[in-house]
Parts: sequence; C-alpha cells; structure tokens
Amino acid sequence: MNIDLNADMGESFGMYKLGNDAEFMKYITSANVACGFHAGDPSVMKATVALAKEFGVAVGAHPGLPDLQGFGRREMKLTPAEVYDIIVYQAGALKGFCEAAGLRLHHVKPHGSLYGMVHRDPEMAAAVCQAAKDLDPDLYLYVMKKGVIAEEAAKLGVRTVFELYSDLSYDPEGNLVITRAHDAHDPAQVAQRVGKMVTQGKVAATDGSEIAIAGSSVCVHGDTPGADQIVMAVRQALEGAGCALASPEL
Amino acid sequence: MNIDLNADMGESFGMYKLGNDAEFMKYITSANVACGFHAGDPSVMKATVALAKEFGVAVGAHPGLPDLQGFGRREMKLTPAEVYDIIVYQAGALKGFCEAAGLRLHHVKPHGSLYGMVHRDPEMAAAVCQAAKDLDPDLYLYVMKKGVIAEEAAKLGVRTVFELYSDLSYDPEGNLVITRAHDAHDPAQVAQRVGKMVTQGKVAATDGSEIAIAGSSVCVHGDTPGADQIVMAVRQALEGAGCALASPEL
Amino acid sequence: MNIDLNADMGESFGMYKLGNDAEFMKYITSANVACGFHAGDPSVMKATVALAKEFGVAVGAHPGLPDLQGFGRREMKLTPAEVYDIIVYQAGALKGFCEAAGLRLHHVKPHGSLYGMVHRDPEMAAAVCQAAKDLDPDLYLYVMKKGVIAEEAAKLGVRTVFELYSDLSYDPEGNLVITRAHDAHDPAQVAQRVGKMVTQGKVAATDGSEIAIAGSSVCVHGDTPGADQIVMAVRQALEGAGCALASPEL
Amino acid sequence: MNIDLNADMGESFGMYKLGNDAEFMKYITSANVACGFHAGDPSVMKATVALAKEFGVAVGAHPGLPDLQGFGRREMKLTPAEVYDIIVYQAGALKGFCEAAGLRLHHVKPHGSLYGMVHRDPEMAAAVCQAAKDLDPDLYLYVMKKGVIAEEAAKLGVRTVFELYSDLSYDPEGNLVITRAHDAHDPAQVAQRVGKMVTQGKVAATDGSEIAIAGSSVCVHGDTPGADQIVMAVRQALEGAGCALASPEL
Repeated sequence: MNIDLNADMGESFGMYKLGNDAEFMKYITSANVACGFHAGDPSVMKATVALAKEFGVAVGAHPGLPDLQGFGRREMKLTPAEVYDIIVYQAGALKGFCEAAGLRLHHVKPHGSLYGMVHRDPEMAAAVCQAAKDLDPDLYLYVMKKGVIAEEAAKLGVRTVFELYSDLSYDPEGNLVITRAHDAHDPAQVAQRVGKMVTQGKVAATDGSEIAIAGSSVCVHGDTPGADQIVMAVRQALEGAGCALASPEL
Repeated sequence: MNIDLNADMGESFGMYKLGNDAEFMKYITSANVACGFHAGDPSVMKATVALAKEFGVAVGAHPGLPDLQGFGRREMKLTPAEVYDIIVYQAGALKGFCEAAGLRLHHVKPHGSLYGMVHRDPEMAAAVCQAAKDLDPDLYLYVMKKGVIAEEAAKLGVRTVFELYSDLSYDPEGNLVITRAHDAHDPAQVAQRVGKMVTQGKVAATDGSEIAIAGSSVCVHGDTPGADQIVMAVRQALEGAGCALASPEL
Repeated sequence: MNIDLNADMGESFGMYKLGNDAEFMKYITSANVACGFHAGDPSVMKATVALAKEFGVAVGAHPGLPDLQGFGRREMKLTPAEVYDIIVYQAGALKGFCEAAGLRLHHVKPHGSLYGMVHRDPEMAAAVCQAAKDLDPDLYLYVMKKGVIAEEAAKLGVRTVFELYSDLSYDPEGNLVITRAHDAHDPAQVAQRVGKMVTQGKVAATDGSEIAIAGSSVCVHGDTPGADQIVMAVRQALEGAGCALASPEL
Repeated sequence: MNIDLNADMGESFGMYKLGNDAEFMKYITSANVACGFHAGDPSVMKATVALAKEFGVAVGAHPGLPDLQGFGRREMKLTPAEVYDIIVYQAGALKGFCEAAGLRLHHVKPHGSLYGMVHRDPEMAAAVCQAAKDLDPDLYLYVMKKGVIAEEAAKLGVRTVFELYSDLSYDPEGNLVITRAHDAHDPAQVAQRVGKMVTQGKVAATDGSEIAIAGSSVCVHGDTPGADQIVMAVRQALEGAGCALASPEL
C-alpha cells in the first residue's frame, strides 16, 4: 500500500524563520510550499524547491489568503473569481520556481481558512478546481474529506488526494478543527493515531466518538512543538504498518 | 520591416484604475503586464491577459521592485539572488495566467528602477537573464540599449529585443531618463520622433545632440496624458513608414 | 440647526489617484481620512491633513481592514483585540499627522466592512469604542444608526455622531447597503433626499418603504461618478433648509 | 553617571516570533519599538508597549523603511519628504499605543538602512529631525555618532542621545557596520568592550585601530545569538563600573 506523507514547507518570510524544513524534508514525500500570500517569499520559495529537489520530494503549491499577518487563518470574503485568481497567481509563481529547477509542479493544496472555505462552499470549490485544471490538467488537488470540493473536482476531472491529519483534531462530522497555533502532541500517540487511520480507517473525534476516515496522504505540521520527533515517528509507524512511502505519480 | 509596438499594461490595482488598457490594446502588438509587486494584482492580471488574447497581443511579464507605493520607481538595494527570485516569482505568476488562458508567455521586461539597475550592473543583468532563461529558454528579454544586459543575455543565449522609447527622454549617453510621472507630449511630435528613430536610427537627446539608436520594438506609455492619441499616432507613423506591426515570433 | 457634512478623503495611494479631494474639501466640514490599510499612504495622509487645515475642515480617522486590494470592503474575521489594535494604529498614525500640523484629531469612523462589523457585533463595537476612548476621550465616534455600537459607545462614555447617507441605499431595517463600487446618482435627487432626511427624518428604503432616520452629519462619497456635483447640491440643499454647516465641536 | 541601555523590541510579526522581549525588557531602560514597516504589527506593538510599561522601560519609536521582507535593511531611494512622512506615520502610530496605555512616547530612533541614510545625507537627517520635532518637541532622537544628523538636530533644537553599540562593529571612521544578520558574541567580551566604551570612551574598530567614541546610551540587540546572556552581562558591567541605569528624562 502506497502512502504519501505531506507537510507544509517554506513558511519562513524574510528574516523570520518558521519550521525546520531542512530536517523535515528528509521524512516527507510531498511538500506544500507557501507562495508568498500568507507565508513564504520568493527567496524562501526558491530555497524550498531546491531542498525538495535534493530529497526527491514532490512540490505542491500551498496558496493562501492575502494576509501575512494573519497567516491566512483569518477568513476573508473573497468572490469565487478572486479565489480563482489568487490560486493561479500563487501556484503559477511556484510553478515558475519548479520549472526553473527542472521540476514539475505536483499538486495544489489550499492553505488555512481558504482550505476551509473551499470545503464548505461549492462556488469556492469550483474556483479552486478550475484554477488547478487551467494551470495543468494533471495537477493533483489535495482535499481533507469527501463532500463539496471532492464533488467539484470530480465534475471537472481534477485528480484528488485525500488527506489524513496526524496532528489536528476532527469534529464528529469529520471536519478539521483549524486553530491559529498548533498544540504540542506526543510523537508516539500521534504515530499510533496515524497507524489506526491508515490501517483501520478510523480516528477519534473531538467528542470521543470514533469516526470513519479514508485517505492516501498523511499530513504532518512543522510548526507544532516537537514536530521533528512527530514526523519521524509517523514515518516509522507507516513503514511499520507495511506502507510504501511515495507521493502520487504525476 | 517588422516592428513591434509594446506598452505597459495591467497597472491597475484593486479599486485603483490606471491607464486605458481596453483602448490601448487595439494598437499595440506586445503587452508588458505588471505582476503585482509595483502594480497589478491577480484579478487585474487575469483580465489583462484575457484582453491581450482578444486582440492577439503577445503577453510579456513586467516584473518590478516590491514597492507598490513607489510604483517600482524607488531604487532598492536587492542582491542579485533576490532579483533572480522576484523575476521568477512575478514572471511565473503571469506565466500561470497565460497558460490558464491557452497562451504562451512571450517576454520579460523589467520595470522602472529595476530596468535601470539591470542596465548598469552586470550581476543584476546576469540575474535577470538567468531567471528568464530558467523559466523558458525561448523567452525574449526586452532591453533599452546595448551594453551590460545585452552582453549578459548574449553570454547566456537569451534572445533580446531592443526598445525605442517614444515618450521618454534619452540622455547624451543613450540612457533613458526615468521619471516618477510621465510628461504630456504632442502626438504628432512623438510620431515624428518615432518615425525618425525607426527609419534613420537617430533621436535628439536631452542636451539637443543627436544620438544613434537602434531597436525593433517601440514602447509607448499608457499613463502619459493623451496616451491614447499618442499610440494611435505612433502606429499610424510606423505603418506610414512601411513597417509591418508584429511582435517577435516565439 | 447645525449639520455636519462629512466625506471620505485621502483615498489615493502612491501613483493611484482616487477622488477629487481638492474640490471636495471646499464643501465639507469633516473629513474621514484613510489611514493606509485599505487606502491612503503616509504622503497622502500628510497632504490630506494639510488640505483639510487650509479649508478649516475637521480631520477624523477612517481606519479600515488591512486589505488594500479589497479597499477594506472584503470582510475579514479579526478578533475584537485585533480590531482594537488596528484602530489605535491607524488613528494614532493620523493623529501624528494632525499634531504635526497643529491640529487635533476630531473623530473616528471605521471604514467599509469594518464599519458594518462594528454595527452588528457588540464585541467589535466595544473594541472600537475602547480604542477611540483610549486614544483621546474627547474623540467623536461616527455611527450609521442606533443599535449595537451606539449602545457600546454610551456605556463607555464615547460621544457619537449619527450619520445620514446621501448616496447609499438603506434596507428596510435601516442598514446601509455597502457595495464595492458606488453607483451614479442625480445630484438634484440626492439633494432632495438629504433635505428630507434632515428636515423630516425620513428616507425611502430599498423596498420602497419609508423609514425613520436621524442624524446630525450627512455623508457624501467622493468616488461616486459626479460626486463634485452631488456634494455641491447637498450643501446647497442643507443651507437652503436653514442648516448651519459645521463639524461637531471638540 | 547615568547610562541608558536600549534595545530594539517588538520585532515579531503575526505568527513570526523574533527576539525574547519578555526576558530582555527586564534589563533595559529604553525600548526601540518596531512600528509595522520593517517589523512589528499593531498587535505586537500593543503587547510591547504593555511589557515596557510593566518593567518601567521608556518607549521609543523605531521606524523603518517600508520593506518587511528586507527587514528595513535594503536601502530604498525615498525622497526626504517621504522619509518625513514615514517617520510621522510610524512614530504617530506608536504614540497612539503609548497614549492608550497612559505612557508618553520617549524617543525616535530610525531603524536599519534608514538609520544609515540619515547619518549620511543632511536632507534625510533634516527630515527625520523635523518629523520628531513636529510630533513632540520634547522627543529625544537617538543617533549613532557625531556629524550630519547631530548637526541637523542641533539646528532644529531636537534633543539627541548618542548611542554606543555593544554588538556591532565600527569602521575606522566610527561608522557602524550594518549587517543583515547579527553575529554571535561572547557575553564577557561584549561586556568588557562596553565597559571600555563607557569609562574610557574608546573602542576597537574593524581594522584593529582604537577610536574615540562617546555616548550615554548603550544599544544591545535581541536578535543576536545568546542575546539574553549579553544584555545581562552588559548591564552587570555597567553597574560594576558605577553607572546608574536610567533612560533620559522627558
């Protein structure tokens, strides 16, 4: 069984450092690279693409809302057309860095509040799917669960990759609980939780109930305290469960 | 004799409108489209690319310094690596809009102070040439005169298009005099000046002396007062001089 | 009967010009000056304060959401603490320009979506009232109608000025209909509408019903087509109705 | 002998944390607070002012060039009028937070490349001095050495505080060597160097020569590796040399 291990990378900005990309890149198979709106800048993007190339990690765009101070986590009322435009802009910019490095852009995964918006609103979802398709019909679109955006992607023939979140909570309906800052977690517990998601298709929700969950890519966050230990533990758990770690083939 | 007529397009931002792109696009053959750093935004870029497509105008990137308030006209001390990065980012973003519209990005022409920097400093020039080449080795690079950047482009095998400026002054050394705001000009005089540049290869410099000048693309600015009249007059003069108006072939 | 005539001023940004402040300033008594987040920049702010001083117009802060591209008209989910902070920052910056010019900051009027948010949400309203009070307990707070923010202001002892909108529509509940762009209006009709609001306390809502309305400051927008004619007509109508044009005294 | 110990504070931005303000504030007597252009944001500014108030530290404005990605360390060609405007804007915004907290703004110290510019160019120096004076004629202006800006300040009657840099190098002419990132230093060596500057008025320049230096405020940077140890060592050395640690009185 193939499983992808993805993480948000390239979230530093200018003098400001965030995450430990050099260490993280050793363990993951796909990188969601910030594109300068909620995090990242052109120089960070070039360096992140180079790092991904060094470790054979697939490079995806992680476009966000135009709000650096809020790190893309403060919802903004954009129109669907504006959402299309900021996706093409940001993913296009990253595609430029990929092509300059001799790589091919692999996927698009909206960031933060934008990710939430496209999972709730069919028009927003359609805008993102159309943007990804227009940029390159082979691009994968990462999604966090079945429903709105998965349906829009299916309509347009955009390939989707379902994610499993190692370090965020799910509510009983299977929605991710997006928080401004990520909590600390015990690596062993996270690894065990991921193992259960992958092998049994189940996870404990915020109310203690067990919900069904399915996906082929596990997401680990780099800005959680102890993140380096977590990604190692998760990778080990996946390999221990007999999974082959690999990003979806373009 | 083929001659290209280029103009800076897509310089509006959000609520702020600049230039009369819908009118200008009827007369030009190449558009230098702002990419969001000194002017333009993702929605303006999409609309500008659509307009260029409608009129069969070649779309080039017009990347600038990251200074919207200064419109990219206040020099900033970036490193050559930073210049490379902002070129790839901005041109990549516009390339995304081109590809989403079924077009191919045609050229790169640095904007404002960045244009001046790359004509003076070999390292800056090399950074821009490398960025253009890495994005797409077929891209044209627009340059304003022989010298530093043309030499770097030649070294790297980047194709150049020399510009003739219809509405900016040249100093006796053939350098453009970049100003924060563009002055008004008489359309007939501008057209006559352009005719002389194209047919005789000469232009009057700021000190009254006549200098030699050569190029295959005439640049007209849209933010000059009376710009619509000027671009019409220039096109008419070029056609009157027996030129075929066309952008360089990709 | 004293009546104030206020307008949003200083909405240009860098090269981008918006409104005809030099003309408008002759007719109004209070200026709501953009503070750099949704519009305006430090140089525009200084020039606008100087212009207001020249015409004896009271200077108020018009703080907006941090979204220049959206002109502060795209709602953003800020926390009440963040709203407090952006009000103090923006109004403080303008207060600096006022003091540097020997003037005293007169009022605070939140802009665009922020204005809507503080009229709906008591916590947002409290944040704005507290910010105004903390900056200067004598500052006036402009409000568009009775209700949430007027109540919070009363609790904190912040002085309020109720506005009458000459050129925006009211829904049947008396809420302003905020649009991204302002429609054209006939100056004579606007003037008549304002006269009725001031003398009879009534206005026609979007559904045709007549609603009660009360206020001591009439707002006219400068970015409406034909705005110069409108502000003149409104001023004339107010004077014709026997009103004395003056900003509330500090 | 009174000596001031100042540090740049409030350089975090949104999710991005920089420096250890909570620890640093215990040792310093004056804080130069970033004002949102090169670092800092409204929420960070409010928190920093509150922290300074808690520890009885004087709050000064640390305005920078409008370049967050470059941290204000990439020179930009602004006009003197633009420099005046960005000083009034940023210092005004911080003054707002001070007044909201019941404090009085204490000083202005330009940041990064702006600091260098105002020490070289009399027009830039005059712009900064005028801005400080116009905001509040009692404000102190921090300067790094005798010369251009000190002379302009004297002309306008602006009070100056000369700085001694604990952790930056001086060239043989007494100019600070501004670098993008600060190097690590040994706390004991820094403390000894500061002791010598304060008691003997001498410091070793980059070429090994010993140059004369005078000042009443020692600057320590918080973004140097090991900064906490350094500020403690410097304070201890100053107290050991018989200095009374205090900010200049308003």
